[in-house]
Amino acid sequence: MIKTVGILGGGQLARMLAQAGRPMGLEFVFLDPAEDACAGELGEHIRAEWDDESALKKLAQLADVVTFDFENVPEKAASLIAASCLVYPPPGALFASQDRLREKEMMQAMEVPVASYYAVSSRPDLVTAVEKIGLPCVLKTRRFGYDGKGQVIIRFQEDMERAWQMLGDHELICEEFVSFDAECSIIAARGQDGQTVFWPLTRNLHREGILAISVAPFFTRQLQSGAEALILKLLDHLRYTGVMALELFLKEDQLIANEFAPRVHNSGHWTSNGAHTSQFENHLRAICGLPLGTGESRLKALMFNLLGQMPGSAMQAVMEGVYWHDYHKAARVGRKLGHVTVTAESEVELRAKAVQVASVLGLAAELNLEAVTCL
Amino acid sequence: MIKTVGILGGGQLARMLAQAGRPMGLEFVFLDPAEDACAGELGEHIRAEWDDESALKKLAQLADVVTFDFENVPEKAASLIAASCLVYPPPGALFASQDRLREKEMMQAMEVPVASYYAVSSRPDLVTAVEKIGLPCVLKTRRFGYDGKGQVIIRFQEDMERAWQMLGDHELICEEFVSFDAECSIIAARGQDGQTVFWPLTRNLHREGILAISVAPFFTRQLQSGAEALILKLLDHLRYTGVMALELFLKEDQLIANEFAPRVHNSGHWTSNGAHTSQFENHLRAICGLPLGTGESRLKALMFNLLGQMPGSAMQAVMEGVYWHDYHKAARVGRKLGHVTVTAESEVELRAKAVQVASVLGLAAELNLEAVTCL
Repeated sequence: MIKTVGILGGGQLARMLAQAGRPMGLEFVFLDPAEDACAGELGEHIRAEWDDESALKKLAQLADVVTFDFENVPEKAASLIAASCLVYPPPGALFASQDRLREKEMMQAMEVPVASYYAVSSRPDLVTAVEKIGLPCVLKTRRFGYDGKGQVIIRFQEDMERAWQMLGDHELICEEFVSFDAECSIIAARGQDGQTVFWPLTRNLHREGILAISVAPFFTRQLQSGAEALILKLLDHLRYTGVMALELFLKEDQLIANEFAPRVHNSGHWTSNGAHTSQFENHLRAICGLPLGTGESRLKALMFNLLGQMPGSAMQAVMEGVYWHDYHKAARVGRKLGHVTVTAESEVELRAKAVQVASVLGLAAELNLEAVTCL
Repeated sequence: MIKTVGILGGGQLARMLAQAGRPMGLEFVFLDPAEDACAGELGEHIRAEWDDESALKKLAQLADVVTFDFENVPEKAASLIAASCLVYPPPGALFASQDRLREKEMMQAMEVPVASYYAVSSRPDLVTAVEKIGLPCVLKTRRFGYDGKGQVIIRFQEDMERAWQMLGDHELICEEFVSFDAECSIIAARGQDGQTVFWPLTRNLHREGILAISVAPFFTRQLQSGAEALILKLLDHLRYTGVMALELFLKEDQLIANEFAPRVHNSGHWTSNGAHTSQFENHLRAICGLPLGTGESRLKALMFNLLGQMPGSAMQAVMEGVYWHDYHKAARVGRKLGHVTVTAESEVELRAKAVQVASVLGLAAELNLEAVTCL
């Protein structure tokens, strides 16, 4: 029986996993180089670099199973731990997600629709890619991109050289720019026995490449089952255990896969308050070999990310069905410091509450009510 | 602004306070003599005796406000901390609850109905008390009683000497034995500004003096407002800040106060999953000077205490609207190790789910469905 869960990474995702796992009687140990890793308050924090072998061995020794709060763990670290301890999701899924090219190739091989793309290692590669894909397109680093970092949109021929100057010393991928009607994500959990649970499709709104708002459920039945079919291909192919998120573009009723995350995901934070079982609980259930709970919605939900600084008024504002989450992190421009989930029985009520909360947050201008009507 | 909450005591109540407070961005520090205090996983644990002055000073230094997870903290410890740190609830409320005689006298002075009682310090006192009260009656220690410990029912004259033998070396109180129709409790939170919030009246079923099952809401509108009026008297009289629970007997539509607890209470654990704001969140909101959330029910709820040992099947059994809580404590006969809260939209659904959960727990025989129909 699993008693102690080790997590590579000690950020807010690890913190929320631990918050979900404590009532289940689980203990936690985190490995993270940051002194102030915000999960550290909820378990033992091994402060060490990702390539510190003795620290990795200590984690494997203390934990009955090891998982991840982010995907850019060095392959060597994950393998070293996997040699002596259960590791879920399987490191193979991690590696596939670390490289946009490998990720796209895998998806394409499995007939998961993706935007057209070309590998780019040189200026001539880039010229060829832009010719084949057409404008606009997006040049991205193959590795270590997140929250819109490591990518440049090429709208005109003149942008090409600037994009190369910015990113040319990395391995790159050039992708078709999808002028989507909406961005959304599907989250699923797969147990060790293959039991799979899906949450409702969630609509996501980004600002400057960072998730700003998620709204769920976002669906027609057809879209939901389409998205489930796509993520199921990835889950089964990777013999996956744990929670996975798949980001999708919606364009003219077609779903196009963007990228997947082999972990709990920001766009699923609403599940803590709006779904029968949260993504955090089911991730732990999966990696501990326990049966999974249903991901069905209890309520309509809208999540605002709290970026840069926690509004002083946040914890002051107590409203029925509104849940504040403070990650207890130091303020820094653009940093994810917390989130608030607004829940309601109906779409009308959700819109009204969201407007109220947005005004508390000073985000009234950013609240795109169009999105909330897409429920 | 409050950042760190100190708690005298590190048991499951402290643990659940910390679980509620983490998402609010609060930190926790606990003082508890037990090495394995189960809250210790959620913050700093100062392991020291209640009379360890340097440990108490350390707690006061680390915390911005100090509160309690049990009421039998020595007066001196609470006073020592109050000298240099905010303490809520006010130590006066603690002291009033520590002595059954003072507690009853206070209630009586405030016209809160109580069973008739007499102080007993000698055999002749006991004889007089039994004469005046009549049989059956209950002899109780004035201090340190909990979960039915420190009390003996006197049903016949012959029981008197045995009761005296068992308890005679303590200061005692003899109380009328109330042959109640039901036991229930009202929980309320009062803010620093006097804002008061009530949760629905909860019906409680004990087994061998220990709470076994709570069901909420248990009410008629009249009973609810009657109970609110009683606890409000106590809250205002004590200039209380924080959560208080008042245990009541219901007999022929009359509410008779039994005892109050100056803290979050076992009969309010269902509020974590069944009410809009939990008793834990509102206790923290109150002691931190934040506005309180509503205590209204979201769902019908039934809580089973998990005593003695955690059923191995607990975390395995994942059902919609059923929430398992494992305090991560070592098993010991009769010890509170966890609880499970069953929630449902309707009474009918709640009964059906409760039967299912009771069968998982092997508690089918103990589930008094009569109680569940009293909603």
